[in-house]
Amino acid sequence: MAPKALDYDSLNENVKKVQYAVRGELYLRASELQKEGKKIIFTNVGNPHALGQRPLTFPRQPVFNLGKVSFQVVALCQAPFLLDDPNVGLMFPADAIAKAKHYLSLTSGGLGAYSDSRGIPGVRKEVAEFIERRDGYPSDPELIFLTDGASKGVMQILNCVIRGEGDGVLVPVPQYPLYSATISLFGGSLVPYYLEETANWGLDIQDLRQSVVQARSRGITVRAMVIINPGNPTGQCLSEANIREILRFCYQENLVLLGDEVYQQNIYQDQRPFVSSKKVLMEMGLPFSKEVQLVSFHTVSKGYWGECGQRGGYFEMTNIPPKSVDEIYKIASVSLSPNVPAQIFMGLMVNPPKPGDISYEQFIRESKGIIESLRRRARLMTDGFNSCRNVVCNFTEGAMYSFPQIRLPPKAIEAAKKAGKVPDVFYCLRLLEATGISTVPGSGFGQKEGVFHLRTTILPTEEDMPGIMDSFKKFNDEFMEKYEDHRGYSRM
Amino acid sequence: MAPKALDYDSLNENVKKVQYAVRGELYLRASELQKEGKKIIFTNVGNPHALGQRPLTFPRQPVFNLGKVSFQVVALCQAPFLLDDPNVGLMFPADAIAKAKHYLSLTSGGLGAYSDSRGIPGVRKEVAEFIERRDGYPSDPELIFLTDGASKGVMQILNCVIRGEGDGVLVPVPQYPLYSATISLFGGSLVPYYLEETANWGLDIQDLRQSVVQARSRGITVRAMVIINPGNPTGQCLSEANIREILRFCYQENLVLLGDEVYQQNIYQDQRPFVSSKKVLMEMGLPFSKEVQLVSFHTVSKGYWGECGQRGGYFEMTNIPPKSVDEIYKIASVSLSPNVPAQIFMGLMVNPPKPGDISYEQFIRESKGIIESLRRRARLMTDGFNSCRNVVCNFTEGAMYSFPQIRLPPKAIEAAKKAGKVPDVFYCLRLLEATGISTVPGSGFGQKEGVFHLRTTILPTEEDMPGIMDSFKKFNDEFMEKYEDHRGYSRM
Repeated sequence: MAPKALDYDSLNENVKKVQYAVRGELYLRASELQKEGKKIIFTNVGNPHALGQRPLTFPRQPVFNLGKVSFQVVALCQAPFLLDDPNVGLMFPADAIAKAKHYLSLTSGGLGAYSDSRGIPGVRKEVAEFIERRDGYPSDPELIFLTDGASKGVMQILNCVIRGEGDGVLVPVPQYPLYSATISLFGGSLVPYYLEETANWGLDIQDLRQSVVQARSRGITVRAMVIINPGNPTGQCLSEANIREILRFCYQENLVLLGDEVYQQNIYQDQRPFVSSKKVLMEMGLPFSKEVQLVSFHTVSKGYWGECGQRGGYFEMTNIPPKSVDEIYKIASVSLSPNVPAQIFMGLMVNPPKPGDISYEQFIRESKGIIESLRRRARLMTDGFNSCRNVVCNFTEGAMYSFPQIRLPPKAIEAAKKAGKVPDVFYCLRLLEATGISTVPGSGFGQKEGVFHLRTTILPTEEDMPGIMDSFKKFNDEFMEKYEDHRGYSRM
Repeated sequence: MAPKALDYDSLNENVKKVQYAVRGELYLRASELQKEGKKIIFTNVGNPHALGQRPLTFPRQPVFNLGKVSFQVVALCQAPFLLDDPNVGLMFPADAIAKAKHYLSLTSGGLGAYSDSRGIPGVRKEVAEFIERRDGYPSDPELIFLTDGASKGVMQILNCVIRGEGDGVLVPVPQYPLYSATISLFGGSLVPYYLEETANWGLDIQDLRQSVVQARSRGITVRAMVIINPGNPTGQCLSEANIREILRFCYQENLVLLGDEVYQQNIYQDQRPFVSSKKVLMEMGLPFSKEVQLVSFHTVSKGYWGECGQRGGYFEMTNIPPKSVDEIYKIASVSLSPNVPAQIFMGLMVNPPKPGDISYEQFIRESKGIIESLRRRARLMTDGFNSCRNVVCNFTEGAMYSFPQIRLPPKAIEAAKKAGKVPDVFYCLRLLEATGISTVPGSGFGQKEGVFHLRTTILPTEEDMPGIMDSFKKFNDEFMEKYEDHRGYSRM
């Protein structure tokens, strides 16, 4: 009998081509070890829950404290009859009750009714106001679409951009694998541009130009460019000057810019505060501000909210023609509407407590506290890595990850080959077995030939961090001791 | 300058080809009239909210009464610190508190943490138990994936099935436009099979075979078949014998069957209760039960729940090889996880109050009450249509829609042509202008050449129904009077 449509051999080849590192060998081994009862420190995040374990408490816990009023609002919206309960004032503060009434009034039938496929108009208006306050330039709610997380928005836009394998999308390497996976799924071509590790993961425009030239020589039409700012997995923050160069480049090369700005609240240095691509584009003036097509993405999953499980995000379109916006709207409407509870979270995120609100003081104290603690952890972690033999790590300027380079001695690379493993996978597996620290090998994000990394989150608590870094150092130094060739090699 | 990637002319052609009737001309005109202050009766549903109006209260209101305990559970899960509040017992009954603790214990970090990309294991287990109780056959939680609504699941599966325009999917006509839209988006070919209106929208296997033969003669590889049971927009319920024939046909023709069973709770007659495709397949025994690839879909958006805005669904895979399941898992993981609150709703739906639970009596009374009322409304509506000149309507056996045929006189068709409108759009626009009743023209769902329909929901309240049907009858009879050729035509 002929193969059936859902037999492996007869599946859509684009589906099979998709690679998604976060579920690789390391992850599966960590899961096995955990089942055997070993204590695993999940610093891979992204998706630690697939095993049924409790993930690091960070993405939930501080948010949880911070968002108390927000959670009360969403709880009241889910069960609006609570608003009529005579005891409501005993459990819910007045501002939570007022906000719940506000958001319920914006919906058309509560959280159980489909919203507009672009999201609730009133929430999109709050997002536009947030962008205006942030950038100092007008923002149009009609050009803001709410989504089930930023990833879904990226997929919608790439689906419109990619017509076939002749269409290329510039993606930073190392990159967050959403981009490579989505480009494979839609049958397009990923055009890599390398971030320069020695320049603190900076982006060199000459290098970018070279990538485009090379892609064109292979017959590829480069149509779009992705930037991740702050970077994932690399943690760098782009300077305003760098963003300006990128936008100028997109203008010259006729590229749509996809600005992944989901980590905009996660900034751990003062030299380069977050500046949005939209703001830089507006400041550049004509012809750029009216010509460069830009789509910017944000989420409720990161920052000091970390509400990953809610699946809420938005994108804002700049200089996209109305007929194209209509097409994007039509595609959004095929899956009816983004989930409504997360739209309320988005409203709460972009419109947080204001001076004078009951919960304002607590909100400011807690959100500052979270970012300051993350800044200290970023420092602890990168300093820790840099104290290890054959490990160098740029400071994590933003986002949630450290991405140290591991200089593997030739003997270690040989041993990996013998074991049939990619060298960084070999290293990370050993690390996992010895310490329980679960990381993601750099090969999952892309790296230059012969150079090896791993990605860890900076999310372990400040109390746990010294122990984790000591454990890492002990493993690493023993590993290096074992594989180093002591004749011509010395510790520097 | 060359066109930019997001200029309309340079968008992915598959995106442009997508048609989605629910946002057609009728919908836009209804929106304009509403803005002008006219009272609009939205019996189109699907997506009434895009205008910011309050939709029919049905999908929310009875659910809302029914689900009181469920909403309390989800509210507590969203704000779990409420469980520690000394006043919790004043506002929340003991079973809601117990259920909230149960679902929180199944998550890995609450509603704000990503779940496994397939959904929370504990909820998938509850779904499997529900399927086992329903069908009397085992169900494996590992083959159940939770999704952001059933539509997203359908899209994931079709993405795996469709490799290019040479791949065909059998879709009933009339159909729910999710299928035509998704097949266009992924660049496949829709192979229509016609439901027979004179046989109460039944499915004739000979006709099906003919569709496949014709598609093959055009060089199309037919890979999958969609059934919608109960039917949308046609409302018919498939008999067990008919499902058996379909499964045998899928076996012979080597087709994956996609069983859209989202209306399985919405049954308004007793001759053909809902029987799942999975159950029929298992009863058929070998070789069918081990050979036919089947994916079945369900949702929290329909039935007596109607929790559309939550975006919760699942699919169950039968006879799909493990390597393919892994591929589907990988694709699901690119967008991280379905939203977690809707997963809790799914758990509550498949695991409702049991005899002895505090809220059991109320649950049974209310859910029965809702279905009985819908049954009366289905009768009122189809009887109403059948009392109108040149209108015939099969009884709405299930789902939420009536799909009357409107026999348009030649003069009306001529007038439509003159106005540059498709005839059923012309009729529905006139209906809208005259009565405020907003429907969807049959052409949005597909119909045989020269035959015209409209789709309405059966969701207006029982009180409102007589007024709406009187208003429809008055309009229709005047319309027919105006356009009928009285020489050779008489009212029958």
